[in-house]
Amino acid sequence: MAKLDANLDRCFSALGDPTRRMILQRLARGEASVSELAEPHDMALPSFMGHLRKLEDAGLITSTKQGRTRVCELAPDAFTPVKDWLSEQSAIWEERLDRLDDYVTNIMKERNK
Amino acid sequence: MAKLDANLDRCFSALGDPTRRMILQRLARGEASVSELAEPHDMALPSFMGHLRKLEDAGLITSTKQGRTRVCELAPDAFTPVKDWLSEQSAIWEERLDRLDDYVTNIMKERNK
Repeated sequence: MAKLDANLDRCFSALGDPTRRMILQRLARGEASVSELAEPHDMALPSFMGHLRKLEDAGLITSTKQGRTRVCELAPDAFTPVKDWLSEQSAIWEERLDRLDDYVTNIMKERNK
Repeated sequence: MAKLDANLDRCFSALGDPTRRMILQRLARGEASVSELAEPHDMALPSFMGHLRKLEDAGLITSTKQGRTRVCELAPDAFTPVKDWLSEQSAIWEERLDRLDDYVTNIMKERNK
């Protein structure tokens, strides 16, 4: 649970930045080298590399060295932990609505007795 | 776009913390007072209030003063911006898979000519 929590922390925190979301959006269209990814961003390379590292630490992207170039791609099932967490919340919410529904139905039954 | 971006930044950053996710999970089951929400957390009240403020700034929760008690609840459509962003990524990804599919189909056609 603590391990899963730390993973979700990293995932959500990594997504909380527009540069990092733009990188993910670009990688959804296919793999790209670090320089291709950096090109649209007006940013010093070390800062840009810091963003890539955060995405990699969160398990959202993977990177491999191909000769002298580092190529990044979206991790398979990158968004699964985030989507699973959101589904869990929806399930709790719907359970609550079901209970509310039962409650109202019971009140109506009592009234019509 | 910039405004939407800032909203997503706040949303995702707010979700990147286990205390804040626990608060949301509790509120999915129904509204609660600040003291009810704080009870399971071993934390000084000012720090806890800081977490609530971040959730409120991100539009994930709302709070109202009822007499001397502040009551919090999950915002309606709290997770919509996050879910919309994730759907957008899936759409880009699927478009890519469709293009790959077309490409493979064309190769097969050429081969069978």
